[in-house]
Amino acid sequence: MENFTKTKLNDYKDEIQPILEKFLSEKVQEYGELYPFAKLFLEHLAEFTLRGGKRLRPALMYYSYMMFEDEDLDEVKKVSIYLELIQSFLLIHDDIMDRSLLRREGDTMHKIFEAYSLQENFQDDVHFGNTMGILNGDLACLLAYEIINSSKLSTEKKSALSFLVSKEITKVIFGQIQDIILAYKEDYSKEEILGVHHYKTAIYTFKLPVFSGAMLANASKDKLKILEDYAINCGIAYQIRDDILGVFGDDKTIGKGTVSDIIEDKKTLLVLHAYSKANRSQKKILDYSLGNKDITHEQVVEFKKVLEQTGALDYSIKECEKYVKEAKESLRGLSVKKNEGFDFLDSVVDYLSTRKY
Amino acid sequence: MENFTKTKLNDYKDEIQPILEKFLSEKVQEYGELYPFAKLFLEHLAEFTLRGGKRLRPALMYYSYMMFEDEDLDEVKKVSIYLELIQSFLLIHDDIMDRSLLRREGDTMHKIFEAYSLQENFQDDVHFGNTMGILNGDLACLLAYEIINSSKLSTEKKSALSFLVSKEITKVIFGQIQDIILAYKEDYSKEEILGVHHYKTAIYTFKLPVFSGAMLANASKDKLKILEDYAINCGIAYQIRDDILGVFGDDKTIGKGTVSDIIEDKKTLLVLHAYSKANRSQKKILDYSLGNKDITHEQVVEFKKVLEQTGALDYSIKECEKYVKEAKESLRGLSVKKNEGFDFLDSVVDYLSTRKY
Repeated sequence: MENFTKTKLNDYKDEIQPILEKFLSEKVQEYGELYPFAKLFLEHLAEFTLRGGKRLRPALMYYSYMMFEDEDLDEVKKVSIYLELIQSFLLIHDDIMDRSLLRREGDTMHKIFEAYSLQENFQDDVHFGNTMGILNGDLACLLAYEIINSSKLSTEKKSALSFLVSKEITKVIFGQIQDIILAYKEDYSKEEILGVHHYKTAIYTFKLPVFSGAMLANASKDKLKILEDYAINCGIAYQIRDDILGVFGDDKTIGKGTVSDIIEDKKTLLVLHAYSKANRSQKKILDYSLGNKDITHEQVVEFKKVLEQTGALDYSIKECEKYVKEAKESLRGLSVKKNEGFDFLDSVVDYLSTRKY
Repeated sequence: MENFTKTKLNDYKDEIQPILEKFLSEKVQEYGELYPFAKLFLEHLAEFTLRGGKRLRPALMYYSYMMFEDEDLDEVKKVSIYLELIQSFLLIHDDIMDRSLLRREGDTMHKIFEAYSLQENFQDDVHFGNTMGILNGDLACLLAYEIINSSKLSTEKKSALSFLVSKEITKVIFGQIQDIILAYKEDYSKEEILGVHHYKTAIYTFKLPVFSGAMLANASKDKLKILEDYAINCGIAYQIRDDILGVFGDDKTIGKGTVSDIIEDKKTLLVLHAYSKANRSQKKILDYSLGNKDITHEQVVEFKKVLEQTGALDYSIKECEKYVKEAKESLRGLSVKKNEGFDFLDSVVDYLSTRKY
């Protein structure tokens, strides 16, 4: 099953990569002539967007559409790249807020422009980097709406999709806000963490893509309800897995340092559970490690051990599986026109709990 | 003529203020329940958006529509508030980049959240303020598209308007980028400054509003061409006047400190011309003042004197008048259905060169 998902994802990525490349290079042409820096600015957005990612979100949109409709598949494929621009928008801004250095095995956007500032002997390189990061993210957001509204979809569908994006990404913004506020809280609950998983991850990684496809295919309200259950459960499972990989994953395969979650003192089910079960010496290790910018390799190893010894790792794996099971069951009641789309959504669920990046 | 514009603007502001208030309070209700901070976050966006402004942009949209069409005026009025959300989006992000403290006689958004962080004993208050400013601006952008796409306009019009916003605000982003890059350059030309005026100011203050109205009224391509000339000339005149007021205006009436343009070393026609005509001692004063965060009141007075003595003030006033005249002439060739709309656009031109805030 896992290989099925990977193959489907890779195939879809191969198909939309040229579409994405074409769109971005057209933008470089369209605005790059304005002045030299405009060209550079766009080329970095293009490189960042093309650099990586599994293209899970566009694939989910496409296959969700395909479940209910077999006309206009090519146009939906073309439009599905808008989700990668939304992704760039959110990642670029998030990385500024989290002060992240690495993304998709490369520099984050604000770091790219910080380096540019250094090279050009501008002053105040961090501020310049952040400034260009803000603008680059803003641009990505505007381009996402442009992709939708310049497509050949009916005007009804274009407007409905634009509306969906506004409503759902608004919720994602609130998820991000809550994520940041939680970082400042000493006490936080499982419900608060799951709330962030729901708003921040599940809506933008699953609900928006799945609804984008299903709505364009005129899926009924009942079907959308089922798909919402599916999407939210998938999203929560995805984030729990992400937090596990954020500590136990392999640096190279996940494309950003695995220490960053520890340094950022990220509020996860893993850490919450570890604290609730830790003895005094284990608590000390947790306290010392979380938020520690100078943590050594040995200390990371010790930190991981505490997560294992307290049962936090097992607990998180089981929680992830619980949501995976829920997602799987949600899908059962769904009647579709075409099995190919359904099989992809179904297989994605299994992939969630086993993925290594 | 000037009073006509002011009366019209005030009347329109009175009409849309309740619409804007209603929309924003609905959003506070819709998302404010999520958690206490979400409510606070939205209330600040509402306060910031309602706080001030002349509502010039929505008025331009409405009267541009009215020139060509008299049906659905109420719906266009409702939708015109989207421009105030775009305005909030751009101002909030710009103020982070410029590190501005004051806006519309109150704190800038990032300063509001910096103060919140200080009060809550979070650490790293500046970063927290910027983070919440980025997210607040992002939200304002999403809400602008929501206003358009939740309106009762035809889907064709909603999609066309969404597309227009993406394309035009993309250009505004490039204008902002160029503005920032110019700040780092020693040498810059009149053309480069006018380029920023065109992209950053004219497009978002005039072209987008005027086109929003005219396009919804199905104005012909020829008419749009005339309106583009009008809008760009108006916008450049508006910015030249803005730069004059930025140094010579009254702090209280313009709602932000008049020293900020000097401190920020803003590249304006005023400064460019002053340098080209200054003698050695005058140059010294310019060099000393621009970018000087600790400038005293007496030094500001001296700086202003140099702008007057070198003829830079007169030159800027004349340049402003030149674009005003061009704008006025552009309009002459326009045939309209209703004079009320035309009279407003025509009167705005006169107002541009005489406005005090």
